[in-house]
Amino acid sequence: MKLPFLRILRSDGRSGQMSEDKGEKLLELARRKGIFWQSYELYGGVGGFLDYGPLGSLLKRKIEEKWLDLFVRKQGIRLVETPIVSPSKVFEASGHIEHFSDPVIDCRKCERKWRADQLLEEQAGISGEGMSLDALEKAIQENRVRCPECGGELGHPSSFNELFKTTIGPYSENVGYCRPETAQGIFTNFRRLSESARGKLPFGVAQIGRCLRNEIAPRQGPIRLRELTIMEIEMFFDPEDQGCDELDRVAKETIRILPQELVSQGGKEPIEIPVLEALEDHYVKYAWNAYFMALAKRFMSDLGVPEARQLFLEKGEHERAHYSVQTFDQLVELSRWGWVEVSGHSCRSEYDLKRHAAFSKVDLSIFKPYRSPKSNKLLKIRPEKAAIHEDFGKDERLVFQLIDESKPEELSEIIEREGAATLSRGAVSFKVTARHIRFGQDEVEEKGRRLIPYVVEPSFGVDRILYATCEYAMTEKKDRTIMRFPLDVVPVQLGVFPLVAKDRLPERAKSLESSLREEGFTVEYDEAGSIGRRYARADESGIPIGVTVDYQTLREDSVTLRSRDTWNQVRTEIKDLPELLRQYFMKKIEFEDMGTLIRRQGSE
Amino acid sequence: MKLPFLRILRSDGRSGQMSEDKGEKLLELARRKGIFWQSYELYGGVGGFLDYGPLGSLLKRKIEEKWLDLFVRKQGIRLVETPIVSPSKVFEASGHIEHFSDPVIDCRKCERKWRADQLLEEQAGISGEGMSLDALEKAIQENRVRCPECGGELGHPSSFNELFKTTIGPYSENVGYCRPETAQGIFTNFRRLSESARGKLPFGVAQIGRCLRNEIAPRQGPIRLRELTIMEIEMFFDPEDQGCDELDRVAKETIRILPQELVSQGGKEPIEIPVLEALEDHYVKYAWNAYFMALAKRFMSDLGVPEARQLFLEKGEHERAHYSVQTFDQLVELSRWGWVEVSGHSCRSEYDLKRHAAFSKVDLSIFKPYRSPKSNKLLKIRPEKAAIHEDFGKDERLVFQLIDESKPEELSEIIEREGAATLSRGAVSFKVTARHIRFGQDEVEEKGRRLIPYVVEPSFGVDRILYATCEYAMTEKKDRTIMRFPLDVVPVQLGVFPLVAKDRLPERAKSLESSLREEGFTVEYDEAGSIGRRYARADESGIPIGVTVDYQTLREDSVTLRSRDTWNQVRTEIKDLPELLRQYFMKKIEFEDMGTLIRRQGSE
Repeated sequence: MKLPFLRILRSDGRSGQMSEDKGEKLLELARRKGIFWQSYELYGGVGGFLDYGPLGSLLKRKIEEKWLDLFVRKQGIRLVETPIVSPSKVFEASGHIEHFSDPVIDCRKCERKWRADQLLEEQAGISGEGMSLDALEKAIQENRVRCPECGGELGHPSSFNELFKTTIGPYSENVGYCRPETAQGIFTNFRRLSESARGKLPFGVAQIGRCLRNEIAPRQGPIRLRELTIMEIEMFFDPEDQGCDELDRVAKETIRILPQELVSQGGKEPIEIPVLEALEDHYVKYAWNAYFMALAKRFMSDLGVPEARQLFLEKGEHERAHYSVQTFDQLVELSRWGWVEVSGHSCRSEYDLKRHAAFSKVDLSIFKPYRSPKSNKLLKIRPEKAAIHEDFGKDERLVFQLIDESKPEELSEIIEREGAATLSRGAVSFKVTARHIRFGQDEVEEKGRRLIPYVVEPSFGVDRILYATCEYAMTEKKDRTIMRFPLDVVPVQLGVFPLVAKDRLPERAKSLESSLREEGFTVEYDEAGSIGRRYARADESGIPIGVTVDYQTLREDSVTLRSRDTWNQVRTEIKDLPELLRQYFMKKIEFEDMGTLIRRQGSE
Repeated sequence: MKLPFLRILRSDGRSGQMSEDKGEKLLELARRKGIFWQSYELYGGVGGFLDYGPLGSLLKRKIEEKWLDLFVRKQGIRLVETPIVSPSKVFEASGHIEHFSDPVIDCRKCERKWRADQLLEEQAGISGEGMSLDALEKAIQENRVRCPECGGELGHPSSFNELFKTTIGPYSENVGYCRPETAQGIFTNFRRLSESARGKLPFGVAQIGRCLRNEIAPRQGPIRLRELTIMEIEMFFDPEDQGCDELDRVAKETIRILPQELVSQGGKEPIEIPVLEALEDHYVKYAWNAYFMALAKRFMSDLGVPEARQLFLEKGEHERAHYSVQTFDQLVELSRWGWVEVSGHSCRSEYDLKRHAAFSKVDLSIFKPYRSPKSNKLLKIRPEKAAIHEDFGKDERLVFQLIDESKPEELSEIIEREGAATLSRGAVSFKVTARHIRFGQDEVEEKGRRLIPYVVEPSFGVDRILYATCEYAMTEKKDRTIMRFPLDVVPVQLGVFPLVAKDRLPERAKSLESSLREEGFTVEYDEAGSIGRRYARADESGIPIGVTVDYQTLREDSVTLRSRDTWNQVRTEIKDLPELLRQYFMKKIEFEDMGTLIRRQGSE
């Protein structure tokens, strides 16, 4: 997966329930509440790197777990984990050393370096994706594109490889690269992995891990990162039998899709179409691609992005990565960044396995048995010993040898056509005829043949998915910000609050906090400030349930539960709490089912 | 944490229930069953890199989750996630550019490079850890240490920095390094993190992530890695109030500890001592260190390593990392590798925060309020305007200025002792006496003071912990290998097997497989070969429960459950299965409680 530019598709601005500066508000809240912020702030910050704070790192882990559950565990897909640093051979074979670059251009005045196609898009509205360096230079001159920093004139664009380069061990010639995708760790292990699938197709292998892409000038905050986490699956299938048995399970799922056919005609409105139809109408060429696209839509919907804010855009021939035969980008609409790719769905065909087979000289095909073995007739040469002995005398051994080295089909054809064939070694040659050779046929049973599988790759960018989850979780109610994270990915599940910080309430609340932790919940304790302020802080952290310990708790071991989403409150006995909360977080009961309704706090 | 050499402590060979070649068997099984293997096999392999296959990657994730649960969630510690690639400033400040090196030496004959101290230890039995380059060279010559590859003479040792180096972005002067530990991502974010803890001590911050250490010549397979996953906590505490409230919870926990005091006297037998006593007897200097050491022992015990196969070895002054004031390594005994460090427990004092404060010029102290504000008396100078005017005339402004610049305490002392003080600027000077100056006292309220916290760091190497878990899980029974992974980290929970691969049994088994997946279990389906062979394969994969679908299943919707550990079988109705299995994996019921006992298979 190569994350593309922010698309030319422009946001229609409807995405948020909040005002235009939602993106700005989110960035401020993310910093303040410990979701994420730019890395290395202490040293002035470095573009393209992101830190996840206490809330963000929990949210990120939950999103990864949700993906693992949906895409890996439930699908019976295998998981692997391979290194970030690779010897150069791997990326020579994969084509990344040749192709994984972007055009860089420097300012003649201030010497700053920029991504040439990005400047062209920003200043002239022309997409430079896939343009040659010459074409780019021409377009930049014609459109008077200038240095965004000092207004200076720009030089010649050149190609900059975006692999982070290093050396492995103490030998300087031992070049290594940081992986820009996790996929190569799967392809290079194909033999072992197909053995563990007992050589049967289809089978899928997944990986989650850090990847590095040395972006030239990342200027889109948390959206364009040099270090990112990717979750991807390589689904290997038989190119002669491309069916996906699982497709039935999602056949009626509707996806919004914008095929190149439409884009090239200037179309900007996606088609809404059931996934099976998208396949039958050949918009999507590969069944496994269609299947994972349907799952990807569900995944983003579960994370709170409405279907109308999602679409699949097919990439044009020149926009696709070097390995791809068809790619759809799953885009979601974000208030500050427009339509942004959160996952890519490519068919990489047999490209990678073929390349690694060629570079490593290791056979990476798999054996495909025929349903029933084929019986092949094989032409065989049967030399007539007596005639050969008679005609060639002392040379007979050489003649036998030359006959043996001949291809039966060729020899038979020449003798049939010409009446004789000349067999030679060096200066010597012998004329053999039907008198010396007869032909017969052997029956040979062929059980199957070897083939290199095709692969479909759904590839997700965790960082952008987390950003989108935050943006769609962020809502406002009576001037307060509430982060309505979905229950299954919520970073902190419970807040425990003593009503006041005195009269043994903090002690009681702390003991409740630790018993809820023992029960497996993620809990935050807070005793600072009024209870109202603490509820407000909990809403901003997206904590779904506040558990308040008050004087009544000391008398009768019950607590008040307060909902982030409705601001309603119910009263529950502590002994029932763990089981009720478990059911609530598994979405088996509603908040109001957890106790006696005592107060509706919509007007809190 | 800097993983040390394999220790001089030698294994007594008692660690396994299996034969001597247990390590060899484990490596073979790990490759064959998809636990782990050396990376880049396809290209001949690269030392120091490890791939985790389908079983291994699940096991690794489970171990990480268990650690998160025990060390982070239950302790209320905050989690963060920061980048691997860092600008050079970070490691200049941290001291890694200066100190994170090992001595390299090359062979004069074949030009291969080696780690000098490692050769000395291997060939002469002398630990070179912490030796100067000169001392190393001398010892190598005296002990006739040679190239292990060609027997050639060795050159001069030099220092090799083990940070992987790269450049960030298109400017070649923008040097970056891959982190060798996750800790710096926490220290550089100290301000934000202490704000999120509302500036109160103690508080802990954890991180799990990949780290890179460019080892010179890693030759210990999965034990010495160039790329590894570290789980660490930085626990910040008040150096003036070092107590650990949590210590009570583990006070009676016994740890086996080998302090330097004993090691330096040649002692090799650890002391067995309750953790509180280890602290009171000053073996362990910091309470938080003692606390985490107790948790670390529990953690490894839970993962199957008996207490007698664990110990904490205190590192000597010259063996410790540059930042450490006291370090204990938690070692476990492995059959092939001897005593190997799985976690390090250091007190890094205020070293890192002080260094980052100095390099970034940002104040990284925190404000520590006094219990009650202190009232301080402050000496103040009160110039006598009339006398000054009278005696110094046109110079009076300069005199006022010089008085103002003086320190009240010094001035007061001189005048008291000598009767007068001389104040000068350049060539001019003035003699002032008690006639010109009086002294008074102001009351100043001081609410607290600023201090830089100390930090204790428990740091775990996931890869070695996984290896140890596998080794201790590996047992033999009647010539079969059984991987008895603990239930809470088991990679695959259930095997689903049709008794035979015909008569609709596979279909029924597959539908059961998918419903068990929907219920949240990790399931593997297997129909190849006899049921006995499939049970044997499941034992080798460490699958605790086999679920067999047979003809009776078709009639009455019940299945046979078969235990990995006892080989017993029970019969259960499918409708009860999910709840029974859940309880079994939460260790609330025994295997035999899951149904009607039908067969004891100890003699399978």
